[in-house]
Amino acid sequence: MHAPASEWPDLAADLLDRLRERQPRIHCITNAVAQNFTANALLAAGAIPSMTISPDEVAAFAARSDGLLVNLGTFDAERKTAAETAVAIANRLERPWVLDPVLIDRSPPRADFARELAARSPAAIRLNSSEFEALDGTSSIEAFAQSRGTVLALTGAVDLVTDGATPIRIRNGHPLMARVTAMGCAEGGLIAALLAVEPDRLAAMVSALLIFAIAGEIAGVGANGPGSFSVQFLDALSNLDRAAIRARAKVSV
Amino acid sequence: MHAPASEWPDLAADLLDRLRERQPRIHCITNAVAQNFTANALLAAGAIPSMTISPDEVAAFAARSDGLLVNLGTFDAERKTAAETAVAIANRLERPWVLDPVLIDRSPPRADFARELAARSPAAIRLNSSEFEALDGTSSIEAFAQSRGTVLALTGAVDLVTDGATPIRIRNGHPLMARVTAMGCAEGGLIAALLAVEPDRLAAMVSALLIFAIAGEIAGVGANGPGSFSVQFLDALSNLDRAAIRARAKVSV
Amino acid sequence: MHAPASEWPDLAADLLDRLRERQPRIHCITNAVAQNFTANALLAAGAIPSMTISPDEVAAFAARSDGLLVNLGTFDAERKTAAETAVAIANRLERPWVLDPVLIDRSPPRADFARELAARSPAAIRLNSSEFEALDGTSSIEAFAQSRGTVLALTGAVDLVTDGATPIRIRNGHPLMARVTAMGCAEGGLIAALLAVEPDRLAAMVSALLIFAIAGEIAGVGANGPGSFSVQFLDALSNLDRAAIRARAKVSV
Repeated sequence: MHAPASEWPDLAADLLDRLRERQPRIHCITNAVAQNFTANALLAAGAIPSMTISPDEVAAFAARSDGLLVNLGTFDAERKTAAETAVAIANRLERPWVLDPVLIDRSPPRADFARELAARSPAAIRLNSSEFEALDGTSSIEAFAQSRGTVLALTGAVDLVTDGATPIRIRNGHPLMARVTAMGCAEGGLIAALLAVEPDRLAAMVSALLIFAIAGEIAGVGANGPGSFSVQFLDALSNLDRAAIRARAKVSV
Repeated sequence: MHAPASEWPDLAADLLDRLRERQPRIHCITNAVAQNFTANALLAAGAIPSMTISPDEVAAFAARSDGLLVNLGTFDAERKTAAETAVAIANRLERPWVLDPVLIDRSPPRADFARELAARSPAAIRLNSSEFEALDGTSSIEAFAQSRGTVLALTGAVDLVTDGATPIRIRNGHPLMARVTAMGCAEGGLIAALLAVEPDRLAAMVSALLIFAIAGEIAGVGANGPGSFSVQFLDALSNLDRAAIRARAKVSV
Repeated sequence: MHAPASEWPDLAADLLDRLRERQPRIHCITNAVAQNFTANALLAAGAIPSMTISPDEVAAFAARSDGLLVNLGTFDAERKTAAETAVAIANRLERPWVLDPVLIDRSPPRADFARELAARSPAAIRLNSSEFEALDGTSSIEAFAQSRGTVLALTGAVDLVTDGATPIRIRNGHPLMARVTAMGCAEGGLIAALLAVEPDRLAAMVSALLIFAIAGEIAGVGANGPGSFSVQFLDALSNLDRAAIRARAKVSV
């Protein structure tokens, strides 16, 4: 049984405080378009990002990290090898890792690789409904999460999080989030950062999605378009506090 | 015979409306420095960008796109293969593709590759006068455009567009556009997006250049330097309307 | 003997004027995360960046550049080859080049490569104290700089520059500089740009660090967080003038 909906905002604020205090190192194997914005979002949140995919180095970086993101938005031989190496190390050292199988519905080889990775115990998976169908055409998200022991975030107009029990719904965010490239990819990084400071995967996942979406809402206030929105998003994520999370959170169980 | 100069602003506004309505998918094979800004400019304009260069995937992405950009700013083996694959698919499916032969005047192997690509029926080529000389040392731009059946944009203090007939001149833009990296590369993406919604190549090209340069002019109002300029550029591109295009367009035939 | 502390601000302003007038071409072999911001920082300062790492082209680009940056933040086979080629050309043509051995304290193969490069006469090396220890566990920074004939910048809360004589300390900057990815990498680019217009390596290095840190201070005024800070940083670097450098510089010998 998880927390009642009324407790999520304070839980999210607690975890954000802890993230800022502990400053976890998050290693990201992510796509070329998203690297810079993901690093800046992690820095804004209070984490310390690293992004190398070099085969000679990824093992050393993964071993010294508190959490790992594997985002499949650029799918090349080098990143494939880097992902396999880093996942093996994360699992051996019992560090949480997040799978973000970007656009696997549009690329069969990417979907195959995502299925392989999904079988290697990610702490969390972030994807939309088309990507989920490409990952597993037969199960419900609840059955999938339960059988794999993972937490699933199904992103969309309403975000949905489940560890196999009743899904939790998050109704925050802003339309301009879809007009800035790498927003979703950066969210994957924040999920890894919260998993690095909180062993309860459901709590970490719901908190990450709440924090990210509420920073988006705040950024939307006074934004003139996608350019100023993305700048204000980093500011909002850096300045986010308990009062704003409490005032804005829309969580339902 | 093309439209009189007085009709271009409304044509550009019509095509921008159509772009926002249809949201064409634009696949970009572009340089590492430009990927993020190009994706954000396409999103700001209303298109849906994808950027993969992975040999396993580029064919699938190109096949599902409505337009293609090939920018030679990063010239490596992977991008070369990706460009060849994507161009073959675009041509087979009769989708428009844009060639932006960045800095071929500084690199003979890049110029050789650009000449090969230019022989494969790009709908449009965007380049400056040094790059044009490296592409074809002997023809005029009009002769080149006519013999190849392409539309050429020669960028500079005044932009010049021709399909072989009398060039059309565009005198919009802002000096800070030259102080932000990847501005020109992003323009190539917008040309592909307009070609994806308008079969008249000349109309698409002139509209893309007008829209891009006018967004730059608007961004320049109140910008404090290249940082705020690039932010305001994305906002301006996202918010651009018919009234602003009419008020600012400086087109002459 | 170098200039007294009171003369550094005017020296820095002189060199910034010269940079803007000469617009040196700076070739950067740098990490994927930093490429875009480094290019924009160089453009903001008044230099002309190029970033290719392609083995077919790096020689031509290095040969036509006035200065070179080698940043090891992405350490892959392609960049290793590119660095070796570009350094050989810079040395043959007597162009200054800067080594920024990012995070070599976390990766032994990267540290090995940095030691190889450090033996090939960089005009300047920029690193923090952990990176210096990984580069040379036994010497003092003064002894290292003197024996290698290079200028060393040890970055930290206080920046420290030495060519082997008494270090010069710079106490400018802003805490938000540590919250934006690629800030340090971009500083390496600016060092190369100032070395390209000033043969006195110590003068170029101190000026680059002063200019960069003072632009950071100015950006910090009124910034709401790391997003607006990085935008204002590019504006401040572009607008920086002698009066601001004089008013803010904190240099001590």
